[in-house]
Amino acid sequence: MSDVRNVHPERVAAIPGWDYEADVVVVGYGVAGASAAIEAARGGADVLVVERTGGWGGAAALAGGFIYLGGGTSLQKALGFDDTPENMEKFMTAAFGPGVDEAKVHDYCQGSVDHFDWLVAQGVPFKQEFWGEPGWEPPADQGLMYSGGENAAPFNTVAVPAPRGHLPQMDNKRTGEKGGGFMLMKPLTETAESLGVRAEYDLRLQRLIVDDTGAVVGLVAKRYGKRLHIRARRGVVLATGSFAYNEQMVRTFAPLLAGKPGSAIEEHDGIGIRVAHALGAQLAHMDAIEVAFFADPQMMARGILVNGRGQRFITEDTYGGCVGQEVLIRQRNEAFLIIDEAALEQANNTRSSTSGMRNRPPTWVAQSVEELEADMGLPTGVLQATVAVYNRHAENGADPLLGKKSEWVEPIGTPLAAYDLRDSTNGFTLGGLRTDLDSRVLHVSGDPIPRLFAAGRCTSGICTGGYASGASLGDGSFYGRRAGRAAATA
Amino acid sequence: MSDVRNVHPERVAAIPGWDYEADVVVVGYGVAGASAAIEAARGGADVLVVERTGGWGGAAALAGGFIYLGGGTSLQKALGFDDTPENMEKFMTAAFGPGVDEAKVHDYCQGSVDHFDWLVAQGVPFKQEFWGEPGWEPPADQGLMYSGGENAAPFNTVAVPAPRGHLPQMDNKRTGEKGGGFMLMKPLTETAESLGVRAEYDLRLQRLIVDDTGAVVGLVAKRYGKRLHIRARRGVVLATGSFAYNEQMVRTFAPLLAGKPGSAIEEHDGIGIRVAHALGAQLAHMDAIEVAFFADPQMMARGILVNGRGQRFITEDTYGGCVGQEVLIRQRNEAFLIIDEAALEQANNTRSSTSGMRNRPPTWVAQSVEELEADMGLPTGVLQATVAVYNRHAENGADPLLGKKSEWVEPIGTPLAAYDLRDSTNGFTLGGLRTDLDSRVLHVSGDPIPRLFAAGRCTSGICTGGYASGASLGDGSFYGRRAGRAAATA
Repeated sequence: MSDVRNVHPERVAAIPGWDYEADVVVVGYGVAGASAAIEAARGGADVLVVERTGGWGGAAALAGGFIYLGGGTSLQKALGFDDTPENMEKFMTAAFGPGVDEAKVHDYCQGSVDHFDWLVAQGVPFKQEFWGEPGWEPPADQGLMYSGGENAAPFNTVAVPAPRGHLPQMDNKRTGEKGGGFMLMKPLTETAESLGVRAEYDLRLQRLIVDDTGAVVGLVAKRYGKRLHIRARRGVVLATGSFAYNEQMVRTFAPLLAGKPGSAIEEHDGIGIRVAHALGAQLAHMDAIEVAFFADPQMMARGILVNGRGQRFITEDTYGGCVGQEVLIRQRNEAFLIIDEAALEQANNTRSSTSGMRNRPPTWVAQSVEELEADMGLPTGVLQATVAVYNRHAENGADPLLGKKSEWVEPIGTPLAAYDLRDSTNGFTLGGLRTDLDSRVLHVSGDPIPRLFAAGRCTSGICTGGYASGASLGDGSFYGRRAGRAAATA
Repeated sequence: MSDVRNVHPERVAAIPGWDYEADVVVVGYGVAGASAAIEAARGGADVLVVERTGGWGGAAALAGGFIYLGGGTSLQKALGFDDTPENMEKFMTAAFGPGVDEAKVHDYCQGSVDHFDWLVAQGVPFKQEFWGEPGWEPPADQGLMYSGGENAAPFNTVAVPAPRGHLPQMDNKRTGEKGGGFMLMKPLTETAESLGVRAEYDLRLQRLIVDDTGAVVGLVAKRYGKRLHIRARRGVVLATGSFAYNEQMVRTFAPLLAGKPGSAIEEHDGIGIRVAHALGAQLAHMDAIEVAFFADPQMMARGILVNGRGQRFITEDTYGGCVGQEVLIRQRNEAFLIIDEAALEQANNTRSSTSGMRNRPPTWVAQSVEELEADMGLPTGVLQATVAVYNRHAENGADPLLGKKSEWVEPIGTPLAAYDLRDSTNGFTLGGLRTDLDSRVLHVSGDPIPRLFAAGRCTSGICTGGYASGASLGDGSFYGRRAGRAAATA
């Protein structure tokens, strides 16, 4: 067994001495870690953040920056959208499961308005502008957008649609350095620093240190091969991210994602989950995955998506992450976009941040559906039947099969084209440690593991099956704060 | 925290004394436990089986009794079927994943012929008769049957089809007491008894007992509220079954199965998984589930199955468990069987053990597809399109969309009917402890937990996604034997 894989806990009696000490030790300086550090410091604790890379930021600083919030935030109100915690909870319960942690979703919705205000108070900027077009992200620095299919079937009949993707105002997206995620992390880490939070970089978590009662009292880390011992007088907060880059864990728990990690960083190797698991920590929803789909939402909304059998399977005007999960999990990672020439031209003339597909030629172009069907190698008749049924109702602006909104429904004409979107997905893992509402890590017996806390994507959060953009920075920051507060008083 | 949920390991120093002692203690007297007990005894160990019910048998004794074996067993050969370990491995790799444990599947295929001979040597009877009709089980005491879709699309193009469902010869199925599962368990437990294996009943596992090095040296159990301590001088074998009846675990790991446990027994509450997890044992594929589908395979093969959108999604002549998984996992638990009057009459005249649907009237009967579609509440045109495409190719005896074998392909005529098969699934869990080829339970660090072994459905076995009937009695008995052998020499 290589030393890297060894996560057996160490007994405090065997520790020769401490290289660093703090009341609260936070592992990982992404959004969960920064939020935890701030609240632990405000709770009166002396806080040390240990981070394995050379600087703060984590996956958050590289992300678009969506934070999933609602229930009537001041930004939602200012832009004219009605929302309530109850309405938000209805949507999340329907969209983020199956198997949602009901207590956590309720708690998150109840605290969401306050959490937005807290982010603003830490200096996170949000521009009062709404972006209403289909897309993964706004094209510029707009602050609010639908980011989870709230305004699309089937969810638009479950709850009153409200946009909840809150986006920190980017400074200059072209540089790639001051996007929404960066503009979230910068004020949070500055706040932490102003509160006296210390940070040590290039320190890699190896194992937890426990006392005879099983309480966590520190951790073993490595810096350039040197073993270090770090004492946590009150508690340890794990904020180490997902296991998307741990190939063995992905194969073991979420094999559909094997070989396609995305929207994560290579440091997301599951170490926080593993060190806690070694203490008997509960895991939850280890198969749940976020899935991105490489297709232009403006094109999708104007066309139809079919699976490997030439059948429609999802409303094309919904959140791309819903499409991604559907394609990878339920359609064997097979999808094709069928779109006519007129619709393609329309889509290409829209503003969008998702320009990847714009200049990409279709895989097949044809003068008739019959010809396209043959070119695609589909059995005779299946695509013709799919388009005929779609067009029959599209004449009336309706999509009774899947509920696409009539603004996007037009009969498919000729000439037309198809894009081969097989194997056009990647993503990250959503499963991890089970925590309670105070971010305490729970033992498989149900009781908290003393002095061990966790938040962010090393935990199972508000998404146990479905996803919305912003859910990870959302529950990471929300339960990161809880972890910091709880650890400070542990 | 209630005492029942507390699975924290006990330290041996705190144990007041031993109520029972043995070299090897096997927990659970189902197929994995019985196989482990036999081999441990043959390995020279003094063996005690502790079982929480009042008698031997477990879920196995109540099961139909399929054991998934192949590679050229004497039964396969006698009935004229060619199979090799390599051919079997090809099928299992394609059908039982994604994420199959490649080493385990290879090992299982290589040892399968020998394992069949071992079962025969223990006195398990197999009748040399093949049953070739679609169905969940043979109608009588036939000994061999396709039980995993080997002879249906898409698997019949991946590997040479060979039936691998080996069924112990039942004595008198009508009594319900001497079915195939009973006829498997009776000789195994008689063999164990003849080897001096002791059994204690009504003993419920609570926790494991460990020494200072982390080795498992015994267990805490309860009998009618009385706490008992059982010493295992060489090792403990966990053979406690699935977690299908642990509602919280199902919601946490396999929420699609919540509220619908099936083909399991109420004792399958995940206790073996939980006590080992508390020691840091690895888990694997916790979302994987077996899914039964309540429909007559003879009727399915002669009709077409459509999902909630009126689209076909699986070849209807395949194994019912493939249909069940597809329906529950990928079709939102929605399915309808469309069948015409002539085909329905044919199906009703076949011999089958699955008579549940036979006398059930269709949900809808209609004179035309258009009428049926309207009665079912489907959007106009979708079912008509599905049937038209099917019939177009059926005229030539072909099913290019899904590959149903031509012997089952007939155009759908009128009058016709539909059965509402929504929410017609149940099943059990396939995820659990990760074990190596010697059935040693692996720590999250990758090393074995000293003196802890496991087999059967408390482990992740040969099925990590797909399933075939017989896979659980198959890997339970195969790796039960390994566990017994390894524990005897621990």
